[in-house]
Amino acid sequence: MTSCHDLTISDTAQLLKSSDRILLLSHQKPDGDTLGSGFALLYALRSLGKTVRIECSDGFPERYRFIYPEFDPETQPDFTPELIVAVDIADTQLLGGNTVKWGEQINLCIDHHPSNSRYAQNLLLDTRAAATAMIIEQLIAALGVSLTVEMGVGIYTGLATDTGCFRYSNVTSECHLLAARMIETGVDVFLINKLMFETKSIARMELERMVMKTLQYHFDKQFATIVISMDAVKFTGATEDELEGIASIPRQIEGVEAAATFYQKGETTWRISLRTCERINASDICAKLGGGGHQRAAGCTVEGSLETALARILDATREKFL
Amino acid sequence: MTSCHDLTISDTAQLLKSSDRILLLSHQKPDGDTLGSGFALLYALRSLGKTVRIECSDGFPERYRFIYPEFDPETQPDFTPELIVAVDIADTQLLGGNTVKWGEQINLCIDHHPSNSRYAQNLLLDTRAAATAMIIEQLIAALGVSLTVEMGVGIYTGLATDTGCFRYSNVTSECHLLAARMIETGVDVFLINKLMFETKSIARMELERMVMKTLQYHFDKQFATIVISMDAVKFTGATEDELEGIASIPRQIEGVEAAATFYQKGETTWRISLRTCERINASDICAKLGGGGHQRAAGCTVEGSLETALARILDATREKFL
Repeated sequence: MTSCHDLTISDTAQLLKSSDRILLLSHQKPDGDTLGSGFALLYALRSLGKTVRIECSDGFPERYRFIYPEFDPETQPDFTPELIVAVDIADTQLLGGNTVKWGEQINLCIDHHPSNSRYAQNLLLDTRAAATAMIIEQLIAALGVSLTVEMGVGIYTGLATDTGCFRYSNVTSECHLLAARMIETGVDVFLINKLMFETKSIARMELERMVMKTLQYHFDKQFATIVISMDAVKFTGATEDELEGIASIPRQIEGVEAAATFYQKGETTWRISLRTCERINASDICAKLGGGGHQRAAGCTVEGSLETALARILDATREKFL
Repeated sequence: MTSCHDLTISDTAQLLKSSDRILLLSHQKPDGDTLGSGFALLYALRSLGKTVRIECSDGFPERYRFIYPEFDPETQPDFTPELIVAVDIADTQLLGGNTVKWGEQINLCIDHHPSNSRYAQNLLLDTRAAATAMIIEQLIAALGVSLTVEMGVGIYTGLATDTGCFRYSNVTSECHLLAARMIETGVDVFLINKLMFETKSIARMELERMVMKTLQYHFDKQFATIVISMDAVKFTGATEDELEGIASIPRQIEGVEAAATFYQKGETTWRISLRTCERINASDICAKLGGGGHQRAAGCTVEGSLETALARILDATREKFL
């Protein structure tokens, strides 16, 4: 692999301007930031007369249709790219099904993840940005393109996605200033928020109902567990995308200092995801069961019945609640 | 009743400056805007050397303790007020237990509700403001007081409360600019959002579980209903405050065009709250059952068994789904 060059916003704008046939890539299991950033950049580059295509190994979900109302992946221009740009992609593995095809040829990566593996020839990385969309807004300005509403929709969506609609710890005054600019541009943020945060599919709602039934408290209600069984997923028809965020249910409970979600991966295989408060080291607990992770978020896989899996995590956690 | 004078921000600042013993009032069932606005103003007035007291007929919830960490309602200064100020209170009835005591004597009302009944001698009303807290920020500046973090906490809390953390249709670029200023002032918005939006009491979580079990779909899943029974409220110990927002559960479901929440008010008395999408007039439907309200949010009270109440609302709604 050749070395990776760090670019400034203005270097990046120059590189984009000097290319005519540009392929943009979004990461697998696409979210609002990779799609919002990707399409905002696509609209900006097209307004400069570039020939641009966007690809995502997992397709373009209907859920984000508002970012690309007229878009049809089948009728995109077909060409041999001069420049391949990875948007919001920390590592080539996240290209999913495109990893083999494009992984070694990425000319430019635009990202905000501190974990970026510097796989691209050129890298525009700003780890202070709460979302890649924040970098894209600056880049569009550096390209000399006036921001349109359709670009603004993508940028706001990326920002709202990666900040949990201005709730996460990464929120800065810059995030709010950007949101203000998007509203001034004419972006209907109410509609976007409604679609993103206030709408649940029936499958998701039914899965939540089933998962809520499994909620159990342990150790004087300081530890809470939920179970996502294969049967529940199958019965509700919930997709991978629709499972997202369910693990936050037990964590939200007042007084709960540790919460575990049991994902059934096989008849007797349980992937346990553990989230903890500051005083409890999740990684230490999961290490006892052959897993690992971070201080406040870790995981492990346990074989056996649900009762066995639960007993094992309770045993590993018990001393923290004595 | 004497007539009500409309004041500007600067008139209001003058009025406050010219008074020494000031009583601030928050509305009953206090929320983040009436409390955040009230305390921000209290801190600002105290910094000017004023003697200030704040009252709320329903007390000061622990849930909002972060707005008033050191506050003890019992050790407040006792005095005959020179100026009585209602904060975020649209009508004297919302003074609750204080209605009789102070309702006829309000010297100044600071509010943003279009429904304000102009009960006060002087009124600073800005219906374009998404929260009363937005008006309070301007007023503090007009008082010549530098905004402190403790004032900022109240202002941000009011703003986040009344905009659903920047999700509601009332969000403007001004809201985001204000949030940016509060972050620059040093307000820990992550902590506030976590406490306000990501934390549920066990009683609330248990009530949600019970309510989720009652979720039913009708008319090809275009109409969804939930039930909040007296038993469920009693069993979980959920307070009035903890019931808030539960009605949004069925409304979030994709494809659902109308959602009804059945609150059991007596053994055979059901308060039905109906929320609808644009094409269905909630007020018309509730009017058939002796109730009323707005186009998209209305209510009625029905006597009988739950089955009867459900049948009546289904009958009243049926034609919309044919």
